[in-house]
Formats: sequence, C-alpha cells, structure tokens
Amino acid sequence: MDVPTRIEAALTAAVERIEGPSSPPQLAAAIRYAMFPGGARVRPRLCLAVAAACGDDEPGVSDSAAAAIEMLHCASLVHDDMPCFDNADTRRGKASVHKAFGESQALLAGDALIVMTFQTLAIGAARAPQRLANLIHVVGRSAGLPFGIISGQAWECEPGVQLREYHRLKTGALFSAATIAGAIAAGDSPDRWRLLGDRIGEAYQVADDIQDMISDAETLGKPCGQDAAHNRPSAPRELGIEGALQRIDQLLQEAVAAIPQCQGSNELRQIILAQAKRFVPKNYNRHAA
Amino acid sequence: MDVPTRIEAALTAAVERIEGPSSPPQLAAAIRYAMFPGGARVRPRLCLAVAAACGDDEPGVSDSAAAAIEMLHCASLVHDDMPCFDNADTRRGKASVHKAFGESQALLAGDALIVMTFQTLAIGAARAPQRLANLIHVVGRSAGLPFGIISGQAWECEPGVQLREYHRLKTGALFSAATIAGAIAAGDSPDRWRLLGDRIGEAYQVADDIQDMISDAETLGKPCGQDAAHNRPSAPRELGIEGALQRIDQLLQEAVAAIPQCQGSNELRQIILAQAKRFVPKNYNRHAA
Repeated sequence: MDVPTRIEAALTAAVERIEGPSSPPQLAAAIRYAMFPGGARVRPRLCLAVAAACGDDEPGVSDSAAAAIEMLHCASLVHDDMPCFDNADTRRGKASVHKAFGESQALLAGDALIVMTFQTLAIGAARAPQRLANLIHVVGRSAGLPFGIISGQAWECEPGVQLREYHRLKTGALFSAATIAGAIAAGDSPDRWRLLGDRIGEAYQVADDIQDMISDAETLGKPCGQDAAHNRPSAPRELGIEGALQRIDQLLQEAVAAIPQCQGSNELRQIILAQAKRFVPKNYNRHAA
Repeated sequence: MDVPTRIEAALTAAVERIEGPSSPPQLAAAIRYAMFPGGARVRPRLCLAVAAACGDDEPGVSDSAAAAIEMLHCASLVHDDMPCFDNADTRRGKASVHKAFGESQALLAGDALIVMTFQTLAIGAARAPQRLANLIHVVGRSAGLPFGIISGQAWECEPGVQLREYHRLKTGALFSAATIAGAIAAGDSPDRWRLLGDRIGEAYQVADDIQDMISDAETLGKPCGQDAAHNRPSAPRELGIEGALQRIDQLLQEAVAAIPQCQGSNELRQIILAQAKRFVPKNYNRHAA
C-alpha cells in the first residue's frame, strides 16, 4: 500500500470505530466531516517517511501514529475555527465544522478527535506495546502544555508573544511529533528526530503565513488575510515576502542537515524536499528542484 | 496516605507538570481553577476503593488512574458549562471557568484536561507498562463515542433520547471507568467490574437530578432547575421525588450485589454504602445507614 492509501485507510478505520447505531448521528457526521476530505496530510506523510527511514518493522504502529497526529491536527482546526478564536466560516474549501453543524457539535467533535488520537495510538500499538508509553508522551507533549498546540493557541491570547516562539508551538509541535512518533513507531530512539520536525514545521508555518497574505479565499479553501485581520505575528508581515521565502530555504536546509544517520536517510532527504514543494506557494517555488 | 490525600496529591502532580514559565499563564491558571477545589471526588474515590479491594499492588498506577478519571470529569464540566451547552455561570460555588477566564480559555482548558488525562495514565503506568493499553481503552471508551461522556452530551442535541440511555452515557460512563480502571490498575481483570460502576453511576445521576429539582443554587454551588429549564430528561421529573428515591435504593442494592469476589469485597461494600450517603440528598437519606 502506498503512503497516501495507508494514511486514509488508518483514518477511515478510526472513524468507523466511532460510527454505528449507538453513536449520536450528528456528532459522528461532524467528526467524519472534520477528517475527510483532508488537506495535504503533510504531518502523517512525514511520520510515515521517518518510520520508513527507520525500517518500519511494525507498519500497524506507524499507521496509527500517523493517523493519531492527523486527528489531533483536525481537532485543532475544528476548535481554532470556532467563533471564540478565528471565527472562520470555511476550511479546506467547505464550511467549517461549526458553520455546518453548529457550535455545540464542533466543540464535541474536537473533544472526540482528541480522545480518538490516544485511542488510536493504544489500538495501533497492540503488536508493540512497549512503544505505547513513548508514543503517548510525544503526542501528548505536542498537544498540551507547555509545548503543544493548545499552549500555542493560548499564547495568542497573552500579550507580548514572540514570533519564533509562537510558530514553534503552534505548528512545530505537531511536525516534531510526526518525526519523533514515526521513529518510535519503528523502534528507533526519539530525541534525535526532534530537530528535523522542528525545522520542517517552522518552514511550513512561514509558507502558510505567506499563503494567508498573498492568496485568495477560493484558492486557499479558508479565509485569507487572517493574520493581518487578527493582528497576529506572521513571518511575511515581519520579514517581507522575499525575506520569508529566504527563511523557508534556510529552514529546509537545516531540516535535511538534521536527518539522523539511519538506513533510509537518503530516501528521506528526497521525500522531504519533494514534499516541501507541495507547501511552498506556487510562483514562489525556487528550491527543492 | 489516606485516599483523599492520595487523590489531591496525584491531581496536584498533574497540574504542576503543566505549570511553569513556559506555559501560557492564563490557561495554566484556568486549568488549576477547574481542578481545585474539587467536588466530592466520588469517581477517583471509587477507583481507589476498587483498586484497594483488588490488592492495589502498584499504588502509583491506581493514583494516576483515579486522577485521570477526575481530570476527564473536570474537562466535561468546563465544556458542558459553556454558553453553547448549559451556559452555567457557577460551578462548585464559584464562577464557571468561562465566566472567570473567558470562552477561549475555557475551551482550551477542557482540551488540555483531556490531553492531561491520557498523559497522566502513561506517566503513572511506568511501573506496570503492560497495564497501560487497557487503561487507555477503558478511559477512552468512557470519554468518546459511542459510549462515553462526549457521546452522552451529543445525544442531548438529538431528538427522542431515552432517559435510561442518557443517564448511562452521561454519568455511568465515568463511574464504570472508575471501577474498571481501578481493577486494571491493580492487575485485576476488567469486565467483571463494569456493572458495579454502571449502577453507582446511575444512582448518582438520579441523586443529582433530585438535587437539581429541590435544591437552591447557593447550596448546590451551581445553577439549579436546569433540567426543567432545558427540558432535559430527569428521573424525578419522570418518576416523582419518591419514585426517584426508590430508584436510588434499588440501584445501590444492585451495585453492592454486583461486587465481584475479591480479597477486599466486604470492605468495598461498606465503602460504597458510606459514600452513597454523601450524594443522596439530605433529609431524603433513608438508606445506607
């Protein structure tokens, strides 16, 4: 099975576990709606790429790690779009979950996706239970306080936040969880994989900030101009578009330099540079050729 | 250490792990506010009572299971109080989290408490890692779809819900998780402990419904008359106060009859009857003498 198929299959298995006549139909529908169709699935792809580079001796474990991280990402999108945060009407080219299902269902859908994240790790690790605690530690860390996405979202509500710190928390957390969880899922040691995820995450956030500034809502599939509208820190607002693009270049160079020695390090380098093409804004894509 | 001290110590350890200079101060404060001071801590007490009845060979594991279930309960209180659900201004005799910290912080505090639930299980199970997957399964089941508290909350938004089904999901889920997790944490087999938790949970929900009907907000520490105001199913609305009290009697008899054979079954029976006194409305307390 190729990587995109593995990811969709793992996500489908997770959502099918919570569907059925015993489940509240509106909420089950809202959860599926939040998960499918997905975006670029960059985090689970990265997770499986690292697992492959480490030998991927238990694909069921790496599949569940990849799916768990994507579900946590979906949870954060659902809650961040809600009126008390971004108040975004659209996401991935369709109505946001609270617009389509109401605020109550959106709140519960995000909650349920967080729970499903950890359930999926536990189910997936059945064949390698000694890897479960570390998977929960790394995914939990990427979600909570002080270093996870919830913390990053909360820092938005605090005065005097620093751009780099904000980026690291809000986006970097899930990318470093993706690399580290991929390594753990394949039996490798986790810590040496953190820097790779950090750098890719920061590059992705800069690219996302550029998209927010230069794109239109139809192309982007979600509201654009949000950073300016909410007066949020943003790399192109601070560095200019050209400066932000240079920053992406630098971060990707640091990322590939940070790949630890492993059996598939050369292939992983190629995958990361190819994937980077997907998120760098079109017409500005000068690297990863 | 006595049981209440163990519970507060485990919860304090969990909240201290997310506090510090790297954490967003408002959110960290909101999380602590949601956890302390607690209510009667009936779920973690039940969890530790079952663990004790099973020998409690790893108190660190049972402490973390008890704390995890209480944090999940706190998460549900924070989110259920929010304007899109109960819109409750008070809880445990003080302002609800969204009233004290705002909706954004309340949303994130609930999210963070769900994450902390699973992190606490993973940290606590370090000395008995083979028990971790089952702990996550039982706590995850009590939280999510189709049989957990999130599902119960979502059923409130669906037409045609049945009283018993509603009770079982919304309250019974965490009580049966408390008994089962207590058993797993002490190395016992889980399934034979489900009925005990189910019955105590249903009794507790009936008692809570009576309180909602007969008490005043100052005594209760939260808004009363909510079931009537929201036209929610409620045992005393359906059965009358006397009928609801008879139902509690019946459920508690079924509960103690459901205690499985174990080394501490006699002590557990006494603890459960003594605890039941704490939640049956005063002036109506006719049993558990």
